[in-house]
Amino acid sequence: MSDSRPIGVLDSGLGGLTVAKEILRLMPGERVVYLGDTARYPYGNRSDEAIRSFALEGAQELYDRDIKLLVVACNTMAAIATKAIEQCLHGVPVIGVILPGVRAAVLRTADRKIGVIGSHATMRSSVYEQAIHRIDSSVKVYQTPGPLLQSLVEEMMLDHDITRMVAQFYLYEMVDIGVDCLILGSSLYPPLFEVIQGTVGTRMQVLDSALWTAKETQDIITALDLKNVKPSKGKEECVFLFTEDPAERGGQLIGQFFGEDVGEYSVIEPGKKPL
Amino acid sequence: MSDSRPIGVLDSGLGGLTVAKEILRLMPGERVVYLGDTARYPYGNRSDEAIRSFALEGAQELYDRDIKLLVVACNTMAAIATKAIEQCLHGVPVIGVILPGVRAAVLRTADRKIGVIGSHATMRSSVYEQAIHRIDSSVKVYQTPGPLLQSLVEEMMLDHDITRMVAQFYLYEMVDIGVDCLILGSSLYPPLFEVIQGTVGTRMQVLDSALWTAKETQDIITALDLKNVKPSKGKEECVFLFTEDPAERGGQLIGQFFGEDVGEYSVIEPGKKPL
Repeated sequence: MSDSRPIGVLDSGLGGLTVAKEILRLMPGERVVYLGDTARYPYGNRSDEAIRSFALEGAQELYDRDIKLLVVACNTMAAIATKAIEQCLHGVPVIGVILPGVRAAVLRTADRKIGVIGSHATMRSSVYEQAIHRIDSSVKVYQTPGPLLQSLVEEMMLDHDITRMVAQFYLYEMVDIGVDCLILGSSLYPPLFEVIQGTVGTRMQVLDSALWTAKETQDIITALDLKNVKPSKGKEECVFLFTEDPAERGGQLIGQFFGEDVGEYSVIEPGKKPL
Repeated sequence: MSDSRPIGVLDSGLGGLTVAKEILRLMPGERVVYLGDTARYPYGNRSDEAIRSFALEGAQELYDRDIKLLVVACNTMAAIATKAIEQCLHGVPVIGVILPGVRAAVLRTADRKIGVIGSHATMRSSVYEQAIHRIDSSVKVYQTPGPLLQSLVEEMMLDHDITRMVAQFYLYEMVDIGVDCLILGSSLYPPLFEVIQGTVGTRMQVLDSALWTAKETQDIITALDLKNVKPSKGKEECVFLFTEDPAERGGQLIGQFFGEDVGEYSVIEPGKKPL
């Protein structure tokens, strides 16, 4: 059986486009409906209550567009609102961006020392630590918030001395401690993958959550027989929705995260007014 | 005559506390009602329409508290929403954080070269350039957005090699060009005053908008005979309002901007729900 319904990708802004990109790369036959809450980006400094409220509005908007599966691409949202989202999606499978990277890291760490870097809200939630310990309680988890990395990505300072200095500032302790797997716990960080891997050296494997989330999405699509076997035109059949027009500043950022221009997109107001 | 009504200070978050601090330092007899829209902070990446809408809600909230004068302490808000705020304040004087620094800079620049650094939204608005040219069209204005400085202040990395490197990255061109006055066009930057002055050297005078705005507030209070001549207990008689509890992360930030703890504060929802 073929399921031509789209895969929903929900994010607080543009960073989740890294996940959408990997999904389309692995499954070029699928269609994606992407919703980025650019009007209220970033979620990292918001209260848990606000984040849950925003997440439910976005999830409902995508549910109304008849998605077959929802990927929560924003780490902060996945950390704080996954359960709430699942409850309102009436059985549509939900994949958060956290567990795929966690599973990959637990499988790969030889020294049982995993590092995680992400937003203040994600780190504060300890969701990575809990998820890792649910699989293997013997693993030591080292967390650090990396808020400056977010600004550097937003400024597109990917290959810059300041960026290398900031990466080193955040990660030198993990290198010293002998962490051998580092999860990039923010969908904004994948563009910094090479800088970060270069900073921590080859003894530490850097894991891109976007990539592992796309892989898990593929596994679940296959397992639940949700594949679209009809030929799709890829990007042209995808839908990109934002709550505030990203053109003014985000135009170039879209390319940074998605690897190319997304083409046409719409600006919508999910649920309540996004203001 | 004595006017015991408070001075309203409106900000998008905690940075405006630098302005409140200077006002209370210059006029210890006055009371301040401070409103920081922490729930929707920062405004720097929002659309002009959203910023105007937030600003009007906040201004109305302070107007309802019977202020004698309103200081718009957020540069982004002052740049984009001052006119709209004035229209809804029924004659209560409004002082934006922009003009006082501009006037000070135009008086001080010997080489007619003024630099400005602030958020993307403030720089995009060109409000500084326009204000400078309204006073003296012969002055050359050099603008640069400094978004990483905001993150560094939020991370309280005030005395740090990375901060010095970032300041140099943003300002070395202005030093080369021979800018002799630099306006800090964000109420978040005053804690970086010394680092920035140290970076640009003594040939460039760094002007702290918070200080100049407080001075102008004092001038207008005097000129309009709005002084509170009754003894005030200072901070204890001030009111601090936030739209989201800053305690979780902002507790230390309050001290950074205000110089000390603000004591008791309230969390409110101005106008509409802040979400």
